[in-house]
Amino acid sequence: MAKEKGITPQSVDFNEWYNEVVLRADLVDYGPVRGTMVIKPYGYAIWENLQRELDRLFKETGHQNAYFPLFIPISFLQKEAQHVEGFAPELAVVTQAGGEALEEPLAVRPTSETIIGYMWAKWIRTYRDLPQLLNQWNSVVRWELRTKPFLRTTEFLWQEGHTAHATQEEAEAEAHRMAGVYAQVLREWCAIPGWEGLKTESEKFAGAVYTLSYEAMMRDGKALQSCTSHYLGQNFARAFGIQFQDKDQENKYVHTTSWGFSTRVIGAIVMTHGDDKGLILPPRLAPIQVVVVPIYKGETREGVLSAAEALCRVLREAGIRVHLDDRDQYSPGYKFNEWELKGVPLRLELGPRDVEGGTVVLASRLGGKETLRQEGLAGLLQERLNRFQQDLYQRALAFRDAHTWVVDGYDEFKERVEQGFVKAFHCGDAGCEKQIKADTTATTRCIPFDEPKAEGVCIRCGRPSAYGKRILFAKAY
Amino acid sequence: MAKEKGITPQSVDFNEWYNEVVLRADLVDYGPVRGTMVIKPYGYAIWENLQRELDRLFKETGHQNAYFPLFIPISFLQKEAQHVEGFAPELAVVTQAGGEALEEPLAVRPTSETIIGYMWAKWIRTYRDLPQLLNQWNSVVRWELRTKPFLRTTEFLWQEGHTAHATQEEAEAEAHRMAGVYAQVLREWCAIPGWEGLKTESEKFAGAVYTLSYEAMMRDGKALQSCTSHYLGQNFARAFGIQFQDKDQENKYVHTTSWGFSTRVIGAIVMTHGDDKGLILPPRLAPIQVVVVPIYKGETREGVLSAAEALCRVLREAGIRVHLDDRDQYSPGYKFNEWELKGVPLRLELGPRDVEGGTVVLASRLGGKETLRQEGLAGLLQERLNRFQQDLYQRALAFRDAHTWVVDGYDEFKERVEQGFVKAFHCGDAGCEKQIKADTTATTRCIPFDEPKAEGVCIRCGRPSAYGKRILFAKAY
Repeated sequence: MAKEKGITPQSVDFNEWYNEVVLRADLVDYGPVRGTMVIKPYGYAIWENLQRELDRLFKETGHQNAYFPLFIPISFLQKEAQHVEGFAPELAVVTQAGGEALEEPLAVRPTSETIIGYMWAKWIRTYRDLPQLLNQWNSVVRWELRTKPFLRTTEFLWQEGHTAHATQEEAEAEAHRMAGVYAQVLREWCAIPGWEGLKTESEKFAGAVYTLSYEAMMRDGKALQSCTSHYLGQNFARAFGIQFQDKDQENKYVHTTSWGFSTRVIGAIVMTHGDDKGLILPPRLAPIQVVVVPIYKGETREGVLSAAEALCRVLREAGIRVHLDDRDQYSPGYKFNEWELKGVPLRLELGPRDVEGGTVVLASRLGGKETLRQEGLAGLLQERLNRFQQDLYQRALAFRDAHTWVVDGYDEFKERVEQGFVKAFHCGDAGCEKQIKADTTATTRCIPFDEPKAEGVCIRCGRPSAYGKRILFAKAY
Repeated sequence: MAKEKGITPQSVDFNEWYNEVVLRADLVDYGPVRGTMVIKPYGYAIWENLQRELDRLFKETGHQNAYFPLFIPISFLQKEAQHVEGFAPELAVVTQAGGEALEEPLAVRPTSETIIGYMWAKWIRTYRDLPQLLNQWNSVVRWELRTKPFLRTTEFLWQEGHTAHATQEEAEAEAHRMAGVYAQVLREWCAIPGWEGLKTESEKFAGAVYTLSYEAMMRDGKALQSCTSHYLGQNFARAFGIQFQDKDQENKYVHTTSWGFSTRVIGAIVMTHGDDKGLILPPRLAPIQVVVVPIYKGETREGVLSAAEALCRVLREAGIRVHLDDRDQYSPGYKFNEWELKGVPLRLELGPRDVEGGTVVLASRLGGKETLRQEGLAGLLQERLNRFQQDLYQRALAFRDAHTWVVDGYDEFKERVEQGFVKAFHCGDAGCEKQIKADTTATTRCIPFDEPKAEGVCIRCGRPSAYGKRILFAKAY
């Protein structure tokens, strides 16, 4: 809570601002083991709201939840060459269990393609067993060196969808469909605009044929990959022998996909919307949408509190997530700061004169105060919450567009990637991408779907452009 | 699926019956690592239904969800002497991560009292920070030697509630309240009758002052501890230094509780209700409450299928979880067997004459067939599902009571614990309990709350009874 001292402004040190805000707003705390985090109730409630909507959409698109074990034999990961190369350096390994050394060490899952592939090889016999449309909600472990709450931790919560199909066409459609579900939730629930697109070869998932992602812009101009969806081709099918007898009696390998959305999105919400006062939460995800702060002294206390309680009841019955801050030990001003820090979209102030006059003062976390009639308040607040949600998205979209540049020269490129995103031509060569990263720390973020067709020369090396359009570069989390 | 051969009857080999049923009904499969399980969609859907109701009740009683890390430094577990003694032999230990040997090995959590205790010591300052009412949905790892799907696996899913209070009274009330929530869900949702009571000293949780449990009877007469709720006193508070400044300015240790409910309950549901045809699922938890099997040949196919689809739509809109089995490759008889194996409570059969006459045939998984009018069917089925739920509970209760004996002689005791539960007097001595276990493999299950006051002599050693009432003995899973 913002008591001891103010929060470091974003403009002074964005990184420090983030670390302070997520801790002080009670979203998260550091765990005792290096790089781990504890997700506190206020942060977890945001995750639950996201889960509910994602889970609904997964089921609506035909998926079922299941649960696969945490421990994966190391040999499984080695079956797919790219996959093991990508994940081996980050594994946490169980070598002892039940007081004895294990014959084969077990990886704590970094992702579950391999163990699910192993089971599918047992389960899938004919085309009638397809498609397999599975999802699981779990935690995964990746031993990262530099960690940051939500964005990069040694353990994080996510969902991982895994599907197997008879044809390439169907599997590719699935990978795109789920990328679309994610984009919908990111836009409509998180109010985070982004670019949907294809990752370049050097940035794709270890083991994928290709990876789709949603690249969002944080308020320091850096990119955050907010989710990924992979078409895995027959890579895992061949590695694990996942074959089916097709209608034509032929034995064929399945085509698989996987797609994931994690608690890192909470970090994206913080860094997309927050300001120097703290968080600003999108109403659809906010654990508390409206906080009521009663304002009283001595003898007015009881009357104001009981009016505030009555008001909360009405709002709660209308389906608004409302909280009454009736703590006696803090002043209204202290409470205002705290709820601003915690990003509650709307605040209602209720004093003795409001009680008498049947009014209430509404303050928006996006600014502005107005006096309203208590009568019909619930409907009005619903409308304000919807507008808040839209305003938040529009604000982030305007910020993103103001910090995105179409660039053709490498000097300008270097300057602009310090401030935001750059759309430029690239030759498609992985070595050239590597050199750009060495020069600027920026990477290719994606080949955006909605970028118009165009040809040009590579921003760095001048060779003809690949991809048939400009692609997106940025420094990334 | 029940195709290759019939299921081993319960009376021939209950253990084998269980293993076959959980696999064939598609609830679960064995994972690649010894003692692990994969929870398949049909099994996981039961868990989701349980989760939804438990989570609702936890929130209604003021709890919030959070997430604490999977990895716990080994030294944490050693801080509470009883706790480490209980859990050390079952730990899975990570010794390498990120390609290097760890300085301190990490336990994969067997339960989270210690890591939550560590965080509370940081978070709790004054009485205003209390109570802490937390819950988490996660998986835990206990390296068991003999494993069995759902009942005892090296990893399982559960929720673990953890609360901290200013006073003993409040903490004890919490432990009892949550045991009551569990009992409610076990009775009303799982249709599992049981005895609520206190565990004896030798059977309590490692680190608890006392443990409350719900002891259910399986159809082989053995007991299954279906959940536990622990009053932990100040044991963990002292081990982790969790103190608060009370209203009287004194620094005091908090009193804590913990309580858990796991996927083992799915095993309890199977073994409480199942029969030689397979599962029988309680309607409130069944992923499919009503299955519709269309009966057609050649030219009647289209008419019957479209009538079946229309019927399903109506039932779905009325909130019934209905599934249309429109697979052409299987006969109605095959389908009947499969859905009986999978424990679907009600089956509707719809043939050409039913389509013409506006009727449908209803078959209950508990027996009985009747022809009904399609008109007003949804309401009637809701009623039948409710009755099914109650019948299932009553049937299990009658079975339990028919297999529970009040016994005063040790020879009779030995005979009866082969068949079910025994209520007998006991001296309260741990050594005597141990001897009974050595003689019979039976253990004390609990000191039941609703057992009337009585005095007598110990069933084995003849010393005066402790506890002031008979206690419950049985062989246990």
